[in-house]
Amino acid sequence: MSDEQAVLDTNQAFYTAFAARDMAAMERIWAHEARVCCIHPGWAPLIGRAPVIESWAAILSDAGAPEISCGDSNAILLGQSALVVCREYMPQGQLLASNLFVVENGGWHLVHHHAGPGPQLAVASATRPDGGTLH
Amino acid sequence: MSDEQAVLDTNQAFYTAFAARDMAAMERIWAHEARVCCIHPGWAPLIGRAPVIESWAAILSDAGAPEISCGDSNAILLGQSALVVCREYMPQGQLLASNLFVVENGGWHLVHHHAGPGPQLAVASATRPDGGTLH
Repeated sequence: MSDEQAVLDTNQAFYTAFAARDMAAMERIWAHEARVCCIHPGWAPLIGRAPVIESWAAILSDAGAPEISCGDSNAILLGQSALVVCREYMPQGQLLASNLFVVENGGWHLVHHHAGPGPQLAVASATRPDGGTLH
Repeated sequence: MSDEQAVLDTNQAFYTAFAARDMAAMERIWAHEARVCCIHPGWAPLIGRAPVIESWAAILSDAGAPEISCGDSNAILLGQSALVVCREYMPQGQLLASNLFVVENGGWHLVHHHAGPGPQLAVASATRPDGGTLH
């Protein structure tokens, strides 16, 4: 299997764990050695494995957690790390995500997740205090 | 200089180029060999050096481009790549950014920029179609 396919498969496994509320799989996917970071939509950044894992435990155990799947994934390989940019599809709309992976113990593991609104959320975008499309 | 300081300095140079509308510096900061990606707030992802550089040329030449500075930067070093998560301060409010760097020709270069709203933009967050704080 190519590195690109392997990292795309790990990205898919992240969303499969999310959709299935599978906390054990979620814990395995996040890196154990590298310092990890997570920016959930509208949250401040969480840095370090403990707060990141705790956030996912809270999300996956909440009845209001969104149905989710991913698509339109693009991988950028950078040797021992790799970035996947993808769309997150939920009943309420789409988000864009940047997911960064590193190789640990011979496999790809998630080291950073940043999800936020994309251009499909035009109404929300237009009401943002920055008010523009220039950055 | 430590790798951490070097990558934080490059992150700062990115925002200095942005604030100064310095397109030559912006072109130097973005990686030349790695495939690059940029998610401006509310935009679809741009992938590849040509569309990313074109987007910055449009932004930096526009009179409406925001005043910007960065702060609260955290670096996560991953060997030949490094992630910086930081806040972007503008007169209209704050954004959160994930900036990914790689080593090319002995120096750190930007390979991915993803900026979007953070928790300070509570009004915009509350109007998002996903409507929640669970992801």
